[in-house]
Amino acid sequence: MDFDLTILGSNSAVPAFGRHPSCQVINHNNQKYMIDCGEGAQFQLSKYKVKRGNINHIFISHLHGDHYFGLVGLVNSFRLNGRKDDLHIYGPPKLIDIILIQVDVFSPEFGYKVHFHPLNYGESELIFENDYLLVYTIPLVHKTETNGFLFKEKVKPRKIIREKILEYDIPRHLIADIRFGADLVIDRKLIAKNEELTEPGKPSFSYAYCSDTVYNPDLASIIKDVTVLYHEATFMHDFEDKAAERYHSTTIQAAKIAEMSGAGKLLLGHFSARHYDLQPFQDEARTVFSETYLALEGTTFNISE
Amino acid sequence: MDFDLTILGSNSAVPAFGRHPSCQVINHNNQKYMIDCGEGAQFQLSKYKVKRGNINHIFISHLHGDHYFGLVGLVNSFRLNGRKDDLHIYGPPKLIDIILIQVDVFSPEFGYKVHFHPLNYGESELIFENDYLLVYTIPLVHKTETNGFLFKEKVKPRKIIREKILEYDIPRHLIADIRFGADLVIDRKLIAKNEELTEPGKPSFSYAYCSDTVYNPDLASIIKDVTVLYHEATFMHDFEDKAAERYHSTTIQAAKIAEMSGAGKLLLGHFSARHYDLQPFQDEARTVFSETYLALEGTTFNISE
Repeated sequence: MDFDLTILGSNSAVPAFGRHPSCQVINHNNQKYMIDCGEGAQFQLSKYKVKRGNINHIFISHLHGDHYFGLVGLVNSFRLNGRKDDLHIYGPPKLIDIILIQVDVFSPEFGYKVHFHPLNYGESELIFENDYLLVYTIPLVHKTETNGFLFKEKVKPRKIIREKILEYDIPRHLIADIRFGADLVIDRKLIAKNEELTEPGKPSFSYAYCSDTVYNPDLASIIKDVTVLYHEATFMHDFEDKAAERYHSTTIQAAKIAEMSGAGKLLLGHFSARHYDLQPFQDEARTVFSETYLALEGTTFNISE
Repeated sequence: MDFDLTILGSNSAVPAFGRHPSCQVINHNNQKYMIDCGEGAQFQLSKYKVKRGNINHIFISHLHGDHYFGLVGLVNSFRLNGRKDDLHIYGPPKLIDIILIQVDVFSPEFGYKVHFHPLNYGESELIFENDYLLVYTIPLVHKTETNGFLFKEKVKPRKIIREKILEYDIPRHLIADIRFGADLVIDRKLIAKNEELTEPGKPSFSYAYCSDTVYNPDLASIIKDVTVLYHEATFMHDFEDKAAERYHSTTIQAAKIAEMSGAGKLLLGHFSARHYDLQPFQDEARTVFSETYLALEGTTFNISE
């Protein structure tokens, strides 16, 4: 099942050096999920040839402009381009008022249907589910109420050992349950434990988006064993005080969160406009967590490997 | 006195082929005036190296997204970049509500002062004046209340003929009045008519922005003898019906307005996303008005020549 992430913008609030504000797109099983939508997101989609047709869910972390100023333009262009599919938007409650004062997305003439899902803040909650994927909020600590997002593949079915089907003559109708962990029970009698019948299935992958946030070790338990973690690193380590004061994080702090949570990979983003050269961000974070990479715009990361 | 125009975006509502929505900047006597502010305007300023320091006046024609979605981002970035100078915004009354729900530009902590000037609609009005320049609204006919803008240099002083100063021994304190057209009158007695004393001064130039609008011959009298006219040409001539239906104009219609008003030059813009190649717009309009040019983004036009 495909599971990848394309970065469309990863600069912090002040645009600099042609870098764009926060926006990324997850592609999972041919469905696209946009996370944050900084100004120019619709142009970035075109520039990096990300087809917008199957973007049906947009998640907005918080109401600082560099995370949502591109939303109204995108939603409006969807309409102008003749979109018919429903669109789900998840974000702080006030977001819908900001959209509605500009574009009446709830009007019957709007062309397609918009569903707005106001997000709570304070505890991690399940906000989306389909057959393959779960999305949870991650409460972050920032200047304003902010949620990160955890994209978690559902547990994939185990593989039944072919010989065991023959050995126990397993009835067809029990196969599905066994693949999802059931023991072989016939007439209320335990015939064989699941471990004997199956091998582990394909692994389930996950992706956590944590931006914007001050350094917060409590995150580690929510995103435990995440495959890929995007964590903001607005500043280098020498600006630790400024980071705390502005409710942002540093390279080293992002790396510590990655280490504590047992992440497979760390992607750094939300870079300060102070820095033209971003390589030092990666180098510094790698002193703590070697599997660190820069979330540069235009880059696609495979989550399922 | 420098008077030029830089196009930052001239595509119509649906972004296409990397072209950006409406935004342009007039530079007059070292002051910058922005007209419309489509999404991405702040990135376009950087891309085309237009210094934003002396943009103190922004004029918004109407509340279709491709003419203002970039405003809140620009206003917010001014703050983040430490702007101190006052900013004047002119536009439909509702524009300020749209800004305020996103960024509290009237808060004492905002960093710089924003003055909002709600525009009337229906008659051409003077909305800005300094020592050198006048700005008037141009009522346009579109789906929503829309104003174009006419930038008009004030009449420049005439040149006094040096020999006449000696011949009539013109007192120093009368020179300024004579340069602005007064006759030489001493002790209530006419000594010499102005025409004898002076030669014409430098010409005064003007620029008219007419977007978006349906074909409207009434415009010609408001923008009479304009030096440079920007007139929307969303469609080619073969889409005349669609243009009317959508309250837009065609190449030929824009050219007719230029001809009727006696414009020096015509700039076409607000191009439909249907067209990758824009050359046919220019070619078609030139069949009616030869001094037609494409307002391509990144281009600067000299108004004072």
